[in-house]
Amino acid sequence: MNIDMIRAAATRLEGHARRTPMLTSPFLDEIAGRQLLVKPECLQHTGSFKFRGGWSAVSALDEATRKRGVIAFSSGNHAQGVALAAAKHASPSVIIMPEDAPKMKIDNTRALGAEVVLYDRAGGESREDIGRTYSEERGLTLIKPYDEPQVIAGQGTTGLEIAAQAGELNVNQADVLVCCGGGGLTSGIALALEAEAPNLRARPCEPEEFDDATRSLISGKIEVNARISGGICDAIVTPSPGEITFPIMQRLCGPGIVVSEDECLHAMALAFSRLKIVVEPGGAAALAAALFHGSEVQGEAVVAVCTGGNVDAQMFKVALERFG
Amino acid sequence: MNIDMIRAAATRLEGHARRTPMLTSPFLDEIAGRQLLVKPECLQHTGSFKFRGGWSAVSALDEATRKRGVIAFSSGNHAQGVALAAAKHASPSVIIMPEDAPKMKIDNTRALGAEVVLYDRAGGESREDIGRTYSEERGLTLIKPYDEPQVIAGQGTTGLEIAAQAGELNVNQADVLVCCGGGGLTSGIALALEAEAPNLRARPCEPEEFDDATRSLISGKIEVNARISGGICDAIVTPSPGEITFPIMQRLCGPGIVVSEDECLHAMALAFSRLKIVVEPGGAAALAAALFHGSEVQGEAVVAVCTGGNVDAQMFKVALERFG
Repeated sequence: MNIDMIRAAATRLEGHARRTPMLTSPFLDEIAGRQLLVKPECLQHTGSFKFRGGWSAVSALDEATRKRGVIAFSSGNHAQGVALAAAKHASPSVIIMPEDAPKMKIDNTRALGAEVVLYDRAGGESREDIGRTYSEERGLTLIKPYDEPQVIAGQGTTGLEIAAQAGELNVNQADVLVCCGGGGLTSGIALALEAEAPNLRARPCEPEEFDDATRSLISGKIEVNARISGGICDAIVTPSPGEITFPIMQRLCGPGIVVSEDECLHAMALAFSRLKIVVEPGGAAALAAALFHGSEVQGEAVVAVCTGGNVDAQMFKVALERFG
Repeated sequence: MNIDMIRAAATRLEGHARRTPMLTSPFLDEIAGRQLLVKPECLQHTGSFKFRGGWSAVSALDEATRKRGVIAFSSGNHAQGVALAAAKHASPSVIIMPEDAPKMKIDNTRALGAEVVLYDRAGGESREDIGRTYSEERGLTLIKPYDEPQVIAGQGTTGLEIAAQAGELNVNQADVLVCCGGGGLTSGIALALEAEAPNLRARPCEPEEFDDATRSLISGKIEVNARISGGICDAIVTPSPGEITFPIMQRLCGPGIVVSEDECLHAMALAFSRLKIVVEPGGAAALAAALFHGSEVQGEAVVAVCTGGNVDAQMFKVALERFG
């Protein structure tokens, strides 16, 4: 896993993934207490950065393998990213989703052309076992959500863009806050920044009770969450950092930042009013850290990646009612 | 008023206005019945395209004039655009706003550094008269919201970007639907497209009861709305097309499209769920036309400009409750 793979992924994504803009607001700068740059990956195809990793992985397969098809397991955003990337490559896709995933994400994944298989996450079924069975039966290639080099390479293209866009805005030293589940995006961005903007430092941001990356960075070994589901930040709830992603994060990332669910909802309401973007709770963790945990951030500027926007109207109304 | 002024404005805006992306969604294509490209000017600084015109006008002034300051009258979006553009040029600004404008827009305009003067629009006070008095007393330069060449030039930079971005997506023939108040954006885009993409045709989109541009294009002379306030599309409610903007629209634009307020709310809900952007009712008129008036649109592709996103949480919740 290295910067060359990220650069190669960027070439494959050119003209397919969206280069998301870098947003700013003087009102948010005031709350954050420093210059705040927001990278809205909610504006990416399928509403999250996951399309980058999906496209990177599918486009890296040889023609025959791609024709047999791909399989992925995901709480929703990786599912949609892989489904659309596969469909655009005329590759069949099977997506294993937890049955308690937001209905919108399940519906969208099906509408994007995937065959969706639901499993019972609370009941202890292992999505990895189910995925392995399907992929062996049909000759499908498993695209893991984060612990997979070509997926990390795709997510890392976000970091190449951040390095370039921050430079254009004369931000050359800053913490780059990233909503973190298994660490695919965080480690990919960290590798890209190491090569392109070494004074920008990636830092994982997580919700309370699901702070596996933060605790792992402190203890120096992979820590596991007590729960693997629940809460409103479903997009970034994973059991633990990955075996590939964690060593990269350990080498390159600053300390994690842990935010509350209320802070995520508040950040969503501010993203609505000040940036005009729709962010889901898990996708707002980094923005919440930038806005409400300024004392844990270093430097005169900060970058926050809003990783996804696939939120039901009901949940969004809750954020507006409480903080709008 | 010509393309050279728009190109000169683009040079002055470079690095100051945001080059907004071009968004797409397979789900919206299906509703529209054709390929739909959305230009989200809600992501522009101050939440609407008006920042472009404000910056263009302020930056075109000579140093001494700029130091005396500028004045504008606006229901809100032009106010914020001029206020921020003036502040960034260290130019004082006075903004005349109707007292029934959305509170958020009034607050934001003040926070951006402007002196706000409220007037009673229903009571028949003429904002033009008030503006003229202020500008004479203090030596301020009046920046009209649409019938002003440098403002049209700034708004027209949106058209330069649309021409380039549509071309990148291989869309070379399409209607370009634009939410239309006084016609500054519509005429500016029309001029830009004439020069850069002559097979893209601008068309004004308006809410029912405020369809002055549509009726003017039919009758061949400037028509006036029966009311000059009311409704939820406040951002694009003006008495009539301008004396500069109308002849340009008459020469270059296709027929207007009139949408209902419900269609605007529905378009807002779809922009939320499918594009992850926040659009205000008046800023959703063109998207509503693309989605729900397909039979009035020509060609295999259509472009819709979402002109602004400055909407209160309360109004946004109404859209989500009814159509989310």
